[in-house]
Amino acid sequence: MNYAETPAHGLVAALQSDTTTCTGIAEAMIARVAEREPTVRALSHFEPEAVLTAARVLDAGDTSLPLAGVPIGVKDVIMTKDLPTEYHSPRYAGFRPAMDAACIDTLRAAGALIAAKTVTTEFAAGNRGKPTSNPHSPEHTPGGSSSGSAAAVAAGMVPLALGTQTGGSVIRPASFCGIFGWKPSWSVISREGLKMYGASLDTLGLYARDLKDFDLLADVFDLEHTGPLFSNLTGLKVGICRTPVWNEAGPGTQTAMETTAAALRASGAEVVDLDLPPDFDDIHPVHRTILAREGRAAFLNEVRAYPATHPEFREIVENARGDSLEWVRHCYRTADRCRWLYDEIAQEYDFVIAPSSVDEAPKGLDHTGSSVFNCMWTLMHVPVVSVPGNSGPSGLPVGVSVICRKFDDRKAISAAALVSDALGAKGALAA
Amino acid sequence: MNYAETPAHGLVAALQSDTTTCTGIAEAMIARVAEREPTVRALSHFEPEAVLTAARVLDAGDTSLPLAGVPIGVKDVIMTKDLPTEYHSPRYAGFRPAMDAACIDTLRAAGALIAAKTVTTEFAAGNRGKPTSNPHSPEHTPGGSSSGSAAAVAAGMVPLALGTQTGGSVIRPASFCGIFGWKPSWSVISREGLKMYGASLDTLGLYARDLKDFDLLADVFDLEHTGPLFSNLTGLKVGICRTPVWNEAGPGTQTAMETTAAALRASGAEVVDLDLPPDFDDIHPVHRTILAREGRAAFLNEVRAYPATHPEFREIVENARGDSLEWVRHCYRTADRCRWLYDEIAQEYDFVIAPSSVDEAPKGLDHTGSSVFNCMWTLMHVPVVSVPGNSGPSGLPVGVSVICRKFDDRKAISAAALVSDALGAKGALAA
Repeated sequence: MNYAETPAHGLVAALQSDTTTCTGIAEAMIARVAEREPTVRALSHFEPEAVLTAARVLDAGDTSLPLAGVPIGVKDVIMTKDLPTEYHSPRYAGFRPAMDAACIDTLRAAGALIAAKTVTTEFAAGNRGKPTSNPHSPEHTPGGSSSGSAAAVAAGMVPLALGTQTGGSVIRPASFCGIFGWKPSWSVISREGLKMYGASLDTLGLYARDLKDFDLLADVFDLEHTGPLFSNLTGLKVGICRTPVWNEAGPGTQTAMETTAAALRASGAEVVDLDLPPDFDDIHPVHRTILAREGRAAFLNEVRAYPATHPEFREIVENARGDSLEWVRHCYRTADRCRWLYDEIAQEYDFVIAPSSVDEAPKGLDHTGSSVFNCMWTLMHVPVVSVPGNSGPSGLPVGVSVICRKFDDRKAISAAALVSDALGAKGALAA
Repeated sequence: MNYAETPAHGLVAALQSDTTTCTGIAEAMIARVAEREPTVRALSHFEPEAVLTAARVLDAGDTSLPLAGVPIGVKDVIMTKDLPTEYHSPRYAGFRPAMDAACIDTLRAAGALIAAKTVTTEFAAGNRGKPTSNPHSPEHTPGGSSSGSAAAVAAGMVPLALGTQTGGSVIRPASFCGIFGWKPSWSVISREGLKMYGASLDTLGLYARDLKDFDLLADVFDLEHTGPLFSNLTGLKVGICRTPVWNEAGPGTQTAMETTAAALRASGAEVVDLDLPPDFDDIHPVHRTILAREGRAAFLNEVRAYPATHPEFREIVENARGDSLEWVRHCYRTADRCRWLYDEIAQEYDFVIAPSSVDEAPKGLDHTGSSVFNCMWTLMHVPVVSVPGNSGPSGLPVGVSVICRKFDDRKAISAAALVSDALGAKGALAA
């Protein structure tokens, strides 16, 4: 078994056929981290001894559990009772919250090995994080704010990792790192114990190099679906949604959308343009306004209780944008109306394809890239799976987003598998 | 200074004029608790020595802070780093989370004395709690799930307390206990560190016996408003909204609505019926469905990680109601549409009056009463202030809800003051 190339379901199969042990998996993980972490810098906290101890406990427990022994990387805005939770914030240096986030609690009950904390920007907001590299090219960003989780999965340090998305913090890094990223429907996986930013937007997200691992996670998190999952593209109606910000798409994303549409058509799908009604024209500024309004409440305590909090949070709390209440209410009305409208529109398609990022990862580690193509779907509360298989001008990965109706997460995962097959590509390990 | 009769702003004034100290206030609180707690049973955790120690620390600090020395009761689903947080759940007996909820962090930064944890039903869901009594009548419920917070304020044990509302858990107890209750607009006060139930519904709530204390809290939580606050009823247009469940209103609530409308009219307001369009006909089952769907995600980890979790949570997680995804999506579409419609409707009125509860508090401590009149406003995300001053068939208190547009919390507080004046009543101490 090559640890770095083995997906979570492969590790579980190896464990359950007695080919390896949880301790064996942990040792392989430690070796892979030693090999890749000096270049990638994806982890904010990693203690090999503690991982081995935890693996021994799992070996002594129930190894028939669905995620038994699977190492999981956890974005450092998610509370973990046995690893620090620091939010990349000086106020929380060394902080241990004494409890797990709800998602961690559920993953542990499924046998997972909570293996490492991964790099995040401060409070999963803004662009200030540790200088994590894109595993495909050290001078390029892996995207953010879930930088470390996406990079750790792409580099084969862990088969699965958790991120969070409030704008585009899960899907954009998936696109840049050439892996699968899943932003579930809003509220179907508990966000308790994740640092808050946008109360109506914050969503737990997941990364993997193999879509079957998302099926496994969908079981663990008890997601449902109605009707059969997709198994064949023939006859499916696919909407191509360039979104109201298509003018921002770079050449890599333009090509990815055309290539994907052609591949789906060649595989028998009916591929049609999905043009949104004018109600959606301002959907991006609407998202930014709601995020800023909800951020005021989210960061108030940080600013009040810890005056050294970075000025960017004070600016959010003090409404430096100067949004009026009338404008904010207009934005909420627009979001409510578009969410309602979109669920009507979405019923006309089996699934929808949209850009996952502006282009391939930009050069430099100071800026994690634009979330402009992700925000609308976060605001719409729909499930999004980013599928790799395309590339940009420098040959770096570019993803496309597969989107289904709210709560049809399993359908989105099955549609992503068909898109991935049509593109003839898999989640690539960045060796 | 009579502690039990003094509102928070009065305690602060006494402190800042050197009439008392934080320690003096704490001693008065301890005496009042000793007097009333044996009957009322509002507190789930109270350590007099720890309160005195905390008060001495406050006396040595900045007593010019806006809430300096004010004892606050905290519903035991809200994380507190120096008091247990037990959620009335056996899994969390004695649990100390090592961090404060965001609201507690902000209140401490304002000088507040986090004085006691108050009785809640398990996870602020269902009806199983400790047998807290209504301070006005020991055989009647104080309402729930914020039972202890409302009862502690009504009994004069604390001038302020925190609750949470997902259905009607703040406003109903305020109505039953004859005090002011405030459910803010959704998302304007951070709910980080509160046990989750409904991600789109959970709202921090506040109790006081004096509306000026809500102004103080609105300052501390940095709430805003546009245009002047209300200072006179003359010429204001008030909508009377009996809601689609008016047939459930008992005689106390029917009389309270008529009395309030007449009092407002007599004070110069234009009082008109607000009849909701048919879109709202199913708004109560829509709320129940969304709550159940969001509860599935919220309680999954409890059920998975702690098999002894009460069966009622397993039933939620397993969708014992049998809601189909199509029905759930219909409910979200209805909620989105009604939220958008309501903000259009609300612009036609200065404020709206609606029932706060079905009637006065029912007899018995096993059931905390119906939230049927509160759910719609929770779902609409609008600010609600419950105003006492009416009474039911047994002479127990009955509140009415004063409602403004989303984000106009300060306007709702100022409107509540006018309603309270028109009714010629104040938040009554239950001696």
